[in-house]
Amino acid sequence: MPRDYRYQQLESWLRDGIAGQRWRVGERLPSVREMCKDRQLSKATVLHAYQRLEAQGVVEARPKSGYFVMPAAVCRDQAAAMDGTFSRATSGATSGAGSGAMAAPAPVTVNEVVMDIMTRGAAFDILPQTTTGHNSSAGIVALNRSIGRALRRQPVAAHHYYDEPAGDAYLREQLAQRYRRQGCERIAEDFCITAGCQQSLFLALMASCQRGDIVAVESPGFYGVLQLLEQLGLQVVEIPASPVNGMDIDALQSALQQWNIRACVVTPAFATPTGATLLAASRQKLLLLADQYDLAVIEDDIYGDLGFFSRPEPLKADDKSNRVILCGSFSKNLSRDLRVGWIDAGRWNTQVKRLKLVTQLASSRFVQQGLAAFIKDGGYDAHLRRQREQLRQQRDQWVDYLDQHWSHEIHFSVPQGGLAIWLQLPEGVDTLSAYGVALQQGVVITPGSLFSATDGYRNCLRLSFLHPLSAARQVALKTIAALLST
Amino acid sequence: MPRDYRYQQLESWLRDGIAGQRWRVGERLPSVREMCKDRQLSKATVLHAYQRLEAQGVVEARPKSGYFVMPAAVCRDQAAAMDGTFSRATSGATSGAGSGAMAAPAPVTVNEVVMDIMTRGAAFDILPQTTTGHNSSAGIVALNRSIGRALRRQPVAAHHYYDEPAGDAYLREQLAQRYRRQGCERIAEDFCITAGCQQSLFLALMASCQRGDIVAVESPGFYGVLQLLEQLGLQVVEIPASPVNGMDIDALQSALQQWNIRACVVTPAFATPTGATLLAASRQKLLLLADQYDLAVIEDDIYGDLGFFSRPEPLKADDKSNRVILCGSFSKNLSRDLRVGWIDAGRWNTQVKRLKLVTQLASSRFVQQGLAAFIKDGGYDAHLRRQREQLRQQRDQWVDYLDQHWSHEIHFSVPQGGLAIWLQLPEGVDTLSAYGVALQQGVVITPGSLFSATDGYRNCLRLSFLHPLSAARQVALKTIAALLST
Repeated sequence: MPRDYRYQQLESWLRDGIAGQRWRVGERLPSVREMCKDRQLSKATVLHAYQRLEAQGVVEARPKSGYFVMPAAVCRDQAAAMDGTFSRATSGATSGAGSGAMAAPAPVTVNEVVMDIMTRGAAFDILPQTTTGHNSSAGIVALNRSIGRALRRQPVAAHHYYDEPAGDAYLREQLAQRYRRQGCERIAEDFCITAGCQQSLFLALMASCQRGDIVAVESPGFYGVLQLLEQLGLQVVEIPASPVNGMDIDALQSALQQWNIRACVVTPAFATPTGATLLAASRQKLLLLADQYDLAVIEDDIYGDLGFFSRPEPLKADDKSNRVILCGSFSKNLSRDLRVGWIDAGRWNTQVKRLKLVTQLASSRFVQQGLAAFIKDGGYDAHLRRQREQLRQQRDQWVDYLDQHWSHEIHFSVPQGGLAIWLQLPEGVDTLSAYGVALQQGVVITPGSLFSATDGYRNCLRLSFLHPLSAARQVALKTIAALLST
Repeated sequence: MPRDYRYQQLESWLRDGIAGQRWRVGERLPSVREMCKDRQLSKATVLHAYQRLEAQGVVEARPKSGYFVMPAAVCRDQAAAMDGTFSRATSGATSGAGSGAMAAPAPVTVNEVVMDIMTRGAAFDILPQTTTGHNSSAGIVALNRSIGRALRRQPVAAHHYYDEPAGDAYLREQLAQRYRRQGCERIAEDFCITAGCQQSLFLALMASCQRGDIVAVESPGFYGVLQLLEQLGLQVVEIPASPVNGMDIDALQSALQQWNIRACVVTPAFATPTGATLLAASRQKLLLLADQYDLAVIEDDIYGDLGFFSRPEPLKADDKSNRVILCGSFSKNLSRDLRVGWIDAGRWNTQVKRLKLVTQLASSRFVQQGLAAFIKDGGYDAHLRRQREQLRQQRDQWVDYLDQHWSHEIHFSVPQGGLAIWLQLPEGVDTLSAYGVALQQGVVITPGSLFSATDGYRNCLRLSFLHPLSAARQVALKTIAALLST
């Protein structure tokens, strides 16, 4: 649902200008009269925009003198969060435009590039067209066999009936058992099966927020969440996150003190794009703040099973007040083509099951049954063991290559799980404008600015070690390095 | 997102009172002071509710004398629509509370019964627990085999990639070919694959409406649409529909003259719950009105392929101005467990594909490929031929049984396609309150009031002839008749 009122256009233009240092802290914005003249806008429109920015704490109105840029919040927290972040720092470049301050709550607009990347099926591959250089997977073969079996075993009459909205009870029981093994006391009834984690996040936000509410997210953070906030008409506050230790909870706290935040989306384990894992201390403090400020905590656990050395305990395990909404999926660690995810919405459980019913009725029974049998037979655990080891080896391949062959200044973290490496290039490098050029050379890159709604991280890039670093991908990396070295 | 403000509670209580003739046309509502006293509400709350009703044309404020009930709109159109409706009328009972007038736009709240019915998988069966009395289906066996084949043929690497958001190109080509055969000139690129028609309708409303917009629907009409309007915070205007000829387009016109309606959801072919098919003249007039009032026309084509004698041409075929959003699914005529539907959103195509991406990323490739192959091989057409004949025979079974064995006064239509018979019982019969009692006796009924947001059709009931009228179902029908004959 597009938002394109004049005052909103002006507002975001002004916010961008402030983020881009066109007007610095303490400086005066153009007068209302000037602005009307320059941009051919009515006085009401300009005033509306200025007053909204004032309400958001971005500018300050001084009687008889105009509107002035306020000091941006929590720069110090941000700075702290960025310290000691890079285990392979080869110089001291800063963290990229837009991540220098925590911007006030704002509507979201997401780059067309995301749509383009998804349409190319390129979310995690710099060479999506390539058909070689994939690791084989006995697990997938077994999974497909299990689904085929479920399909053959279905009574013909089954096609007359929808699955119950919450999903297959046996699959939900398998999920509950897995989480119980991870110290998270859940039962089958807690879960609702979805069409993947993206749908889980959608249901979580629909159930816990109302249009216009403010939602805190990690910055840099998953672009899928930013897209959801845009579509649901929610406002975003980006909380600085360290590529090693995840969301800066002190920064979250100061955001909570400034703004009426309704929900917080967090990926405690191996977050994309950085691979960060939330510190134990931060986990506890986050839950305390959630109680104190009555937050919905939306936990994106999609990478939780992809820890190379250990499986971090889900936040949900310590959720005393039933306000953590646990979201996950089999897409990253089993198959992106299954379209099976889950959500445990805690106190919003009833509402989420109703929303699932209303927006898609039900899920496919035979797929769930085949998957449940695969898990029950131990196929999933066996697959995960192989998968984790394979990913760890591939991470090392990519990291070593970057160390040895990337010609110029670069920073990146070495994640202990997940799929992503967060590359930081020198100031001035613009990965977003490089996207098109790379594409012409058959290479798809994932620019850093996709992971922020405030046009930050233009000098950053997400790489994924989901695939082996084949010769073809090494050539593609050379191409990228060359493109970005100018 | 629940709406439970006091003024809203009062507003709907008043609206119900007016619909229920507690206050008749021209009568004065209780004064603000009385209302504050009786209901323990603040003056602001009461005024807010009264002023909203005034804005909606339900009541009229007369200076110094209070608020008065306005004449309800288009009673005559309604009356006309209900004339000559029933091909098996055995007496002249009227059409049930709530359908006596077209209520002003209002927020929607849907009955818990819908959720209960869906959880019992009972949407189209009075005996959902029964495992016998189903017609066999060679088509389903062939379909499942085709999906199994697609699953085996998938390259293992496929599990690393998401399908493109719009869905499998080959399946979309099959859809386009089918619609071209029905006089609807579509191409693969026009379609986006969804998780079923419910999701298609959800995407259609998300893309074409903004929160608070007014949407016109058929009355009685599909409860899934009412649930969507509720969840998306849209207002509804219920347009009377004849069980034979569908939506009363004259009534739609007078609604368009009164209110700023943004979209119209219509089922031109074999609508649920009545089985009605829109008259040719109405189709043309609907499209003219859509142009005149800049409407989005959301066409629910889910029953289009289930015509016993012919396949009505989709509205979309005459859509000169690209404002018809065509929604459909394989759930009703092939399998409810496939979870595959489609949407052709016309001018909203880009927005819909983006919404699909944002709310669920992608669909399952192997299911789409198996289905596409099944269609291409002619399996679907062969299945449809058998299915249509089977349904026609079952319709006759049910209709004959109702004629011969239903003990007391009853009206119903004899649909020429689809799955539903709309039963109309004498005034005073309350099918909604009978729901619980029937359940205790192992029978699930679908009360008429589910098909309206204004608590109408309490004396109506939807039956489905999806299943053969087995001995067990005959007993269940006897139970229902006994329950409702009191």
